[in-house]
Amino acid sequence: MRADQVLAYLAEHQQRHLDQLCDWLRIPSISSESEYDEDTKRACAFVADELRELGLAVEVIDRGGHPLVYAETEQRPDRKTLLFYGHYDVQPVDPLELWDSPPFEPVIKDERIYARGSSDDKGQLYCHIKALEAFMKQGIELPVNVKMIIEGEEECGGPSIYDYTEENPEKLACDAVVISDTTLYNAETPAVCYSLKGLCYMEIRLSGPGMDLHSGSFGGTVQNPGNAIAEIIAKLKDADGRCLVPGFYDDVLDLEQDERDAFASLNYTDAVLKQETGAPEAFGEDGYTTLERMWARPTCDVNGIASGYGGDGAKTIVPAKAVAKVSMRLVPNQDPAKIAAAFQEFVQSVCPPGVACEVENLHNAEPVLVSRGSDMMKAGMRALEQGFGAKPVFIREGGSIPIVGTFQSCLKSPVLLLGYGLSTDNIHSPNEKFDIVNFVNGCRTTAVLLEEAADG
Amino acid sequence: MRADQVLAYLAEHQQRHLDQLCDWLRIPSISSESEYDEDTKRACAFVADELRELGLAVEVIDRGGHPLVYAETEQRPDRKTLLFYGHYDVQPVDPLELWDSPPFEPVIKDERIYARGSSDDKGQLYCHIKALEAFMKQGIELPVNVKMIIEGEEECGGPSIYDYTEENPEKLACDAVVISDTTLYNAETPAVCYSLKGLCYMEIRLSGPGMDLHSGSFGGTVQNPGNAIAEIIAKLKDADGRCLVPGFYDDVLDLEQDERDAFASLNYTDAVLKQETGAPEAFGEDGYTTLERMWARPTCDVNGIASGYGGDGAKTIVPAKAVAKVSMRLVPNQDPAKIAAAFQEFVQSVCPPGVACEVENLHNAEPVLVSRGSDMMKAGMRALEQGFGAKPVFIREGGSIPIVGTFQSCLKSPVLLLGYGLSTDNIHSPNEKFDIVNFVNGCRTTAVLLEEAADG
Repeated sequence: MRADQVLAYLAEHQQRHLDQLCDWLRIPSISSESEYDEDTKRACAFVADELRELGLAVEVIDRGGHPLVYAETEQRPDRKTLLFYGHYDVQPVDPLELWDSPPFEPVIKDERIYARGSSDDKGQLYCHIKALEAFMKQGIELPVNVKMIIEGEEECGGPSIYDYTEENPEKLACDAVVISDTTLYNAETPAVCYSLKGLCYMEIRLSGPGMDLHSGSFGGTVQNPGNAIAEIIAKLKDADGRCLVPGFYDDVLDLEQDERDAFASLNYTDAVLKQETGAPEAFGEDGYTTLERMWARPTCDVNGIASGYGGDGAKTIVPAKAVAKVSMRLVPNQDPAKIAAAFQEFVQSVCPPGVACEVENLHNAEPVLVSRGSDMMKAGMRALEQGFGAKPVFIREGGSIPIVGTFQSCLKSPVLLLGYGLSTDNIHSPNEKFDIVNFVNGCRTTAVLLEEAADG
Repeated sequence: MRADQVLAYLAEHQQRHLDQLCDWLRIPSISSESEYDEDTKRACAFVADELRELGLAVEVIDRGGHPLVYAETEQRPDRKTLLFYGHYDVQPVDPLELWDSPPFEPVIKDERIYARGSSDDKGQLYCHIKALEAFMKQGIELPVNVKMIIEGEEECGGPSIYDYTEENPEKLACDAVVISDTTLYNAETPAVCYSLKGLCYMEIRLSGPGMDLHSGSFGGTVQNPGNAIAEIIAKLKDADGRCLVPGFYDDVLDLEQDERDAFASLNYTDAVLKQETGAPEAFGEDGYTTLERMWARPTCDVNGIASGYGGDGAKTIVPAKAVAKVSMRLVPNQDPAKIAAAFQEFVQSVCPPGVACEVENLHNAEPVLVSRGSDMMKAGMRALEQGFGAKPVFIREGGSIPIVGTFQSCLKSPVLLLGYGLSTDNIHSPNEKFDIVNFVNGCRTTAVLLEEAADG
């Protein structure tokens, strides 16, 4: 059977695969920092070269930012087609002093690879590439057509992938998009993610006096933007944490009973939440469990407030300005544009007198919901079960992956979110790591998926 | 007559006095920055040497921080005694790039001296010293005993002056304390300030999660300290700007009708307020004019809020912490310790669940009210009228000068606040300046005061 041969190959070449991954991780492809532009280019060439060497047709597509890599195997009309997506760029590394080892000198410790990009996303993406290798290097016929689109602007929010997808829906046409840039449910439990929250990220800017004023000389005579921003933010939510923006919940798709049952069976306790977050207790909207709020209820959170003096000790001023960043995580079927407009109108309506108020919509992402019943989803579940040797569960995700909405709307294909990382991988933080067992099982899962999707 | 001879001397030596002031201003005595410690010591020696050279008995008192200078003329029991207070240290200069000329290279332009410390407080203090010189260099008998206490920790909040005053009330005993560290009412109108607000400066610190959390992964599951700090601050004041801390207004001494009439006669319009502050409109407690709120109503103002991300663009986090600095400016007879305790209790009572809340009292100052009817106040009014050639008015001041409360309570003497500066002198800001006419008239006023206080 093909699968045995493929899995045996992966086991045999595991050490070399890890070594190669470490070579890739040594390239500091920080896309948001221009001093790393040459390195980011090298990381792009690394993956393009490897795919070309495997025998795929590879294009490096330069649209002005960091280039896209598009690659495809032979495309036969009698086979299903999978489009794999990933990214070769990584997050910045600061605060560098909190890293136990240099972020671009991979270290294997306690069966984990420590390096920036190890989990997000080079390590996870490499699972797909090495599974392909196991077929192609052995001359085993691929059960499906494979396409890959890999970007270098995921961490800096660049437009290349969005524009390219919108302009090339036929080239990227597929039966499913496969993305491994999320997580297992926990270390013992693989998962398919079938819903992502959307996002509506707003900035409120208040200006009052023309400069910071002496709080003795002018306190009590003019509106204080620091007080005013607090008044506005306090009116965004009630004491339970429910958002008070009019119409906010109107389009929310309620959870199905079977989803609530499935969530409940995962036994996510507040003790686990407290351990994961360090928060003193759980808090949020009445009538929903913590996991329901995390995965399927829209939220409204301050991401930052800045006004006046924030340093040590005292400075006696009435601040000239105040700014707040507020993000709303949206659930299916909320519309980010509609929510942004309602938010803007509401904030203006509750803004106290004596300050000028601007409300800007910094960016949006559409919420995503994928049918759990499709053949491709079932194929994904089978692949995870064989790859990880444990029964997978369906999960949702509170975060947003904006490109997923674009894939859905442009390609009309189901998106399979097969996360191989863990929520404790410290992505975007110091000491990012990827467990070797998850790398190994991720390679196995993709290998099995290439089989299972053929029947899916 | 003595006064004519003294005033003639001041006119004759004006240019030399300005040159000497510029020499003093060249010494960067920034007390809060330790790299200027040697300079601060030099600025102290400068004034000590000058007073010694005039014939006063001078002590430089080192209590561990920046030293105090105490000086006295011959003390005769048949004369009244005035204690002059001032400070030789200055504010930091940042943002340096906003200065039109280097802060410690005094420039005379448009009949003003531009330099850090020119108005606050070297220039104003120097008026007293040069008035003394006009008597002593000419061998004219002083009409009063003079004491001077000059500190170098005013701008860094050091304890030396407070401790010394508490420990040496007999040495500092006097019939009035004279302080020139405030302002005229406006360029045409000299003023005696008879009331200062007190201060109660609080810091609220909230901590929620153990680290900044991904707002997608954990939004809606735990309390957000950024939202929580806004809720607390919003509850501190009502929509009119009245403070909601229980008991806040209980001890407030209401304005007398004659004070309200006197304020009204000053014609301080909201147009002037808008021009001075750049604020779009006046705002504050109902039932009081702008000047009444500024000078005689207690306030509650945010001085700063900091939580999460305040930079450009978006960062999607639930912040781990939030901090707010809130100052309450107090009026006679409010008690800072009582207000601080009420504030702490109130904030804890309105703090939402899910965050730990600490409320710290960073510092306090007592409000000050001086009788307008005393002989010394009348002497001060006469001195200002002759010195500035214009009828002075009584004013109050929204700011706090903490040492005034200490002088009042330890020395039991009236405090005469004869400000020679202007509110537009940019003290604590770039391009600090002192109008030469105010320096000249300040010297004249002190000279006349030394006469008038003898009869006062």
